[in-house]
Amino acid sequence: MSEIPKDHPRYASLMTREKIVEGVELGITSQQGLVAQGRGECFDYLIGEQTTDSALMAEKVAVAMLLLAEHPVLSVNGNAAALVPDSLVRLSEATGALLEVNLFHRTEGRVNRIIEHLKTNGASEVLGSRADARLDLQHSRGIVDSEGIYNADVVLVPLEDGDRCQALVDMGKRVITIDLNPLSRTSRTATVTIVDNVIRAVENMISLSHEMKGLDEAELRTLVEGHDNSHTLSDAVRQMIRKLEELSGL
Amino acid sequence: MSEIPKDHPRYASLMTREKIVEGVELGITSQQGLVAQGRGECFDYLIGEQTTDSALMAEKVAVAMLLLAEHPVLSVNGNAAALVPDSLVRLSEATGALLEVNLFHRTEGRVNRIIEHLKTNGASEVLGSRADARLDLQHSRGIVDSEGIYNADVVLVPLEDGDRCQALVDMGKRVITIDLNPLSRTSRTATVTIVDNVIRAVENMISLSHEMKGLDEAELRTLVEGHDNSHTLSDAVRQMIRKLEELSGL
Repeated sequence: MSEIPKDHPRYASLMTREKIVEGVELGITSQQGLVAQGRGECFDYLIGEQTTDSALMAEKVAVAMLLLAEHPVLSVNGNAAALVPDSLVRLSEATGALLEVNLFHRTEGRVNRIIEHLKTNGASEVLGSRADARLDLQHSRGIVDSEGIYNADVVLVPLEDGDRCQALVDMGKRVITIDLNPLSRTSRTATVTIVDNVIRAVENMISLSHEMKGLDEAELRTLVEGHDNSHTLSDAVRQMIRKLEELSGL
Repeated sequence: MSEIPKDHPRYASLMTREKIVEGVELGITSQQGLVAQGRGECFDYLIGEQTTDSALMAEKVAVAMLLLAEHPVLSVNGNAAALVPDSLVRLSEATGALLEVNLFHRTEGRVNRIIEHLKTNGASEVLGSRADARLDLQHSRGIVDSEGIYNADVVLVPLEDGDRCQALVDMGKRVITIDLNPLSRTSRTATVTIVDNVIRAVENMISLSHEMKGLDEAELRTLVEGHDNSHTLSDAVRQMIRKLEELSGL
């Protein structure tokens, strides 16, 4: 990695970019993942590169949903594996959710490299290589594990494709996504959308998981049932409009 | 290229992404170019992935400027070469502008590969390998050809770096840029900023060049002199705000 001074005003953003480039070099992130990263950078800039109040609320609801789930799964793609491998392992431990590698541009080699990468980062078990079930989707992105996503009741899909998010919702699953674009099909389709950088979001969710373990089931249910996803999305959009107005002097 | 399902709602955008990735594989686009592509995609999304009225007007002014120029040059970088090699060759023919390869992350190998790529796409002559003049800039991004950009009166720089745009303007050149971010330094510095996807912009400019060849010099000058670039930029920001409001139902 290149050396970036810690006091650089864009330190977090630059380090994130370095991690993604390293992911490409390790063969776990696709070239397309770099493009997706650029896209995320732009939206993150428009929300001010910080967790908004409504994103934090969505993270709380997501954790409640994971803690209430019978068979929760955290889906891991190439960008998530490059950016937050250790945090995803810790979130899995804190919530009891399984980890499953699931790729849009799927190759067996990349699936196995990501599984190994997660194990290097502390995971004891990672699904995704069995590939013995399918979502109702053309293309290799429909391939999943029967023990994992296929039978899950709650799935966290950070940085997910719109079609796959829809297919999971159509199967009756509760889908949590982390997506910096509040207008994407994924954002609109998911049960809970966290409009936040995946690096901040997963760290927040780990802390929240520990804090919220003291809550009883009724309290967790109240959180989940009180969630209005369209409110979360419109709040994020309002934030972006304010930022554009501010930057352009309109 | 990977297989993208044709029925995917974002097929066009995903195919564009594939072209950039192919550019990296061909050794003509840099990894940094991939992240830049992603940032562009986000802004394109916010202007509705279509040429706005004010962008079309800026394209018209840009064509008038190229037709009036004594020594116009189209600068080609790694992203432009990957996305629109054939269109740039046709725009060069339609306006009489020279083509010059000019890279931010310059290597002789990449310059030569892009020159060959443009020739494969129909170019008869491409400048950029002589490298016998400099703009007032540190770093290899200051290197240009004396017969090309150095002596040009009008330069089209699609997807340009802010410092280099400033250096060209400081030399008294008229600079046309194609940049999807209306808030970038390049957008604010250029003489004419086209806030549009380079793929749509160059195609539009080819058609306009043919249509506008019937206009006399006075008519072309009227177009150029009537142009207010700050109006173009604030119109693009307003468009993005409207799009955010519309898509979110705010």
